[in-house]
Amino acid sequence: PNRLLSLLISGQGSLDRKALGGLLNTLAARVHCTNGPCGKCLSVEDVLALGRPDKPGLAPEPVLESRYISHFSAAAALYLNNPEETCKDIQDGLLASHVDHYLTLLESPEAMTLGLSQLLQKIEAHAASQPTGEENCVDVPQLLEEAEEAGASRSPGLVLTALLDHVINGSCFQGLPSPQYFVDFVFRQHNSEAPNITLAELEVLMHRLGVGGEDHRDHDHHSHLDREVNHQDSEPHATHNSSSSVWDTVCLSAKDVMAVYGLSEQAGVSPQAWAQLSPALVQQQLSGACNPHPTAHIED
Amino acid sequence: PNRLLSLLISGQGSLDRKALGGLLNTLAARVHCTNGPCGKCLSVEDVLALGRPDKPGLAPEPVLESRYISHFSAAAALYLNNPEETCKDIQDGLLASHVDHYLTLLESPEAMTLGLSQLLQKIEAHAASQPTGEENCVDVPQLLEEAEEAGASRSPGLVLTALLDHVINGSCFQGLPSPQYFVDFVFRQHNSEAPNITLAELEVLMHRLGVGGEDHRDHDHHSHLDREVNHQDSEPHATHNSSSSVWDTVCLSAKDVMAVYGLSEQAGVSPQAWAQLSPALVQQQLSGACNPHPTAHIED
Repeated sequence: PNRLLSLLISGQGSLDRKALGGLLNTLAARVHCTNGPCGKCLSVEDVLALGRPDKPGLAPEPVLESRYISHFSAAAALYLNNPEETCKDIQDGLLASHVDHYLTLLESPEAMTLGLSQLLQKIEAHAASQPTGEENCVDVPQLLEEAEEAGASRSPGLVLTALLDHVINGSCFQGLPSPQYFVDFVFRQHNSEAPNITLAELEVLMHRLGVGGEDHRDHDHHSHLDREVNHQDSEPHATHNSSSSVWDTVCLSAKDVMAVYGLSEQAGVSPQAWAQLSPALVQQQLSGACNPHPTAHIED
Repeated sequence: PNRLLSLLISGQGSLDRKALGGLLNTLAARVHCTNGPCGKCLSVEDVLALGRPDKPGLAPEPVLESRYISHFSAAAALYLNNPEETCKDIQDGLLASHVDHYLTLLESPEAMTLGLSQLLQKIEAHAASQPTGEENCVDVPQLLEEAEEAGASRSPGLVLTALLDHVINGSCFQGLPSPQYFVDFVFRQHNSEAPNITLAELEVLMHRLGVGGEDHRDHDHHSHLDREVNHQDSEPHATHNSSSSVWDTVCLSAKDVMAVYGLSEQAGVSPQAWAQLSPALVQQQLSGACNPHPTAHIED
């Protein structure tokens, strides 16, 4: 399936006009211009010209040597990302320089991730049929891994060629992380043997988010209530309007949060439970109840 | 059902020894001491003594006048919260002063909410049978509302009496907010007509949480990628170890987050969708990807 990538890595062989023509037809089918068909503005000649960077004027060679497949892939990526603009580049004879600029730009890992993410989202946005969610769409990490496995590096040329192979194969793409990624992130950092996040770890995580008060159950209520509520004269018992709740000023401890979701301290917080309790962690920040200014908070 | 509360508010009538005895039996059944039965240390005499604060030494009146029901309720609350400690208070003749202190302490709304929350959790923790989750347990806001409806204020005496009525009736209690509260909080603050949170509102909320980059889809990728990735020399393409993901340094925009969860901009974010995307908001904070220091972020 990754024909172009293998060819590129082999460093031998080439793509003749017929092969290039076939590839470009498939490519054009995947591209949708906002106002009507884009037409096939990326021609075999344009691609062959990429294979002779030093002698732009001369008649292009009859084939594209395999080592220039990365430039072809970059041109295809530019075209997929923004057909109108790329076609204009081609007419203005700027394709080669934009391809070089693009390959250089993607040298940094962050630009590569962002660039690919944008590109895959654009390809998906223009795809004739939206993925049903069943099939496994190709995502950014997968492309990087494929390039790494094939060529021992994540250089832009390799990655974009891996992408072009998948475009030609008609794969669907996923340009953004999956919902599960956001949960896995937390559990990747969780370093104890137990599969679940412990109460102590939840306390640390909540602390990093600026929430989580001290637990008030361990103290007898007299002394503790005294300390908790600083005695500035908050209005005694203003009647509550419906848009506020008594909980709005309460800073919950990690134990409280686990109790709200019926999680036992022994069992800890599973990935699924983490997703369930996340709205509480967000609310506690938005309410500001745990901020160190005088509202009720369970902190000394 | 709220017999004591009505009696208290009426300001007439009283509770005789027989009535008090019955109430104290029911109360004792609800209390569990950590090491064995607590015994009925709160006696009818102790309660009657609360009804004569100015002449502590004299033989107690045969009845407790209705206006002292709030003191009785406070004593019951102390007993429910910490039987061992309250029994010791009683032996040391300190019940009346602790009752007064408790009532004064709960004058501030925050202390009331925290105090009730602790109390209800303790009652539930000691309850013979844990609520199955089906029945509607009495919670803090409900007690405050009942006191307010009955007596036009949320004074501690009224609230604790409302609580005592429910204890006597055998209700179950919920000392903490429900999971739904944390979602409702956000939608209570959402002020546009539409039921769902709009993209613009999600951007504001994400901004308040210190996350959410500028959306990168509206720009053509060339110029934008340049600006997004500041060009300090992050190591070119270090191979990724399994405990990190390419997404770990990416700061997502509100549009990205909605796209991850398949939410359409027109439909906006429903309460259920808000709960679904909360893990992404928390992850973006924990990863620090949106912090204004040099990792890839979609912000100028």
